[in-house]
Amino acid sequence: MIPKDPAFEARVRESFARQSHMATLGVTIERLAPGEVDLALPFDPRFCQQNGFLHAGVIASLADSASGYAASTLAPPDTDVLAVEFKINLLAPARGERFLARARVLRAGRTLTVCHVDVYAVQAEPTLIATMLSTIIVRPLASAGGGER
Amino acid sequence: MIPKDPAFEARVRESFARQSHMATLGVTIERLAPGEVDLALPFDPRFCQQNGFLHAGVIASLADSASGYAASTLAPPDTDVLAVEFKINLLAPARGERFLARARVLRAGRTLTVCHVDVYAVQAEPTLIATMLSTIIVRPLASAGGGER
Amino acid sequence: MIPKDPAFEARVRESFARQSHMATLGVTIERLAPGEVDLALPFDPRFCQQNGFLHAGVIASLADSASGYAASTLAPPDTDVLAVEFKINLLAPARGERFLARARVLRAGRTLTVCHVDVYAVQAEPTLIATMLSTIIVRPLASAGGGER
Amino acid sequence: MIPKDPAFEARVRESFARQSHMATLGVTIERLAPGEVDLALPFDPRFCQQNGFLHAGVIASLADSASGYAASTLAPPDTDVLAVEFKINLLAPARGERFLARARVLRAGRTLTVCHVDVYAVQAEPTLIATMLSTIIVRPLASAGGGER
Repeated sequence: MIPKDPAFEARVRESFARQSHMATLGVTIERLAPGEVDLALPFDPRFCQQNGFLHAGVIASLADSASGYAASTLAPPDTDVLAVEFKINLLAPARGERFLARARVLRAGRTLTVCHVDVYAVQAEPTLIATMLSTIIVRPLASAGGGER
Repeated sequence: MIPKDPAFEARVRESFARQSHMATLGVTIERLAPGEVDLALPFDPRFCQQNGFLHAGVIASLADSASGYAASTLAPPDTDVLAVEFKINLLAPARGERFLARARVLRAGRTLTVCHVDVYAVQAEPTLIATMLSTIIVRPLASAGGGER
Repeated sequence: MIPKDPAFEARVRESFARQSHMATLGVTIERLAPGEVDLALPFDPRFCQQNGFLHAGVIASLADSASGYAASTLAPPDTDVLAVEFKINLLAPARGERFLARARVLRAGRTLTVCHVDVYAVQAEPTLIATMLSTIIVRPLASAGGGER
Repeated sequence: MIPKDPAFEARVRESFARQSHMATLGVTIERLAPGEVDLALPFDPRFCQQNGFLHAGVIASLADSASGYAASTLAPPDTDVLAVEFKINLLAPARGERFLARARVLRAGRTLTVCHVDVYAVQAEPTLIATMLSTIIVRPLASAGGGER
């Protein structure tokens, strides 16, 4: 996939740095390439559900940011991305030392980008624990801050 | 809707108290009735996306817990609930002092419960900012801890 | 909800008449109002799954057209609508003499419209058998025929 | 993936033959292997939307049956499968002479199976036109006919 913005990496990293939720969760960018973003999250007992596994909303947070930034790598300069919707299937308990979300753009349309994200729990070897389909809207920067879809 | 477990409220509150992610986010139970759970979340700058609105994953966390516990209010004693999947549409920016997720059970089947959740941003008056459809599996307590679906 | 196109009803009926799939299934428009479309479908043994219930894809067809036209009632003149995505939960077997899909617009944004559809099987009394959340894109007529999202 | 029922192929083909909707649409089984089902559908002007492309509900019908039977290939003997829910993104117009849905099981759990389906329009070369995530419940034959989830 060919980026429309040669400076996509700086643009994505700058936006990621402004997502306080990513910093709070301790998420790091593991891979950033046209149409591809991998984000990593260490296990943290502060973000769990009732059985001590990571909360599904935390897995969704990781996958949502990964898919938004995967869409952003292919967006034109001076644009921002907003999540329109996503659907996630939780396949196995979010048990592990570390979690990896791998987002890939399936289709970058004129207005909308569709991504697929697989989330793995990494202990000895990776286990697929969730899978997401998401729709992202690309907006000119001026209007995107308003949050309209 | 008629609960199968007269002690459903104590069971739900005890499980909610074990979700560290809810405590970390500052979520409180606003309503707990058979088939109905409302959860509230104050705005917090630590949980935002790049434009200073609440992160979609935080909205999803709130809605997911609300729907899981709505399902739980109708579940038999000695059971636990696990999210199978959910789909959320983000309708407007998550801008507000406070957020309210209202989960309602649409159908409580033999194994699966389907919920609908509306999430509102509350400032002067409430604005619908997201809507979710979710599927929850009810499991005997002994096996639920394993996280299998 | 206030329509942007006073001629929305004629526009929707004309488009509906061009959907050969609706004619093949025997679908009729039961209600057409700003932000609201109800479509009805008689049971037909040609469109069933393995147990003689209506196929989930037929229920989805009914709900998808209902939601697209609900979005269309609020769209400007000289536009067409395209489904971006939908998610449907099948709540009960599609058993009945007649089926009714009730689509309602949850939010009509600048580019995207989000709908909710409930589908009922109607025998003596209506039973909720499915519920859908859908995202629709509104496009100027000239470009919509290309099918781009 | 290892089938639990050595006679899975005969069981799937027998059930498929009972889906009148598949016969009405002209769908054929192109591939049947443990965890994998491909279904093909010829273009037919009777099943279109307003611009002459295949209706999204027809694409969903094809993908839903493919995913149900993919789940069925891994199910024990004397079981039936029912769709719990699915979510589909329409990526490009359903324009082509022939359509192919490729369903793959992502996870076969104790009760629920999760599938991923890609749908292609095949003309000169295949174009990805839709992608689905679906949840299927496996039920003992005796109770499955009732359609309960």
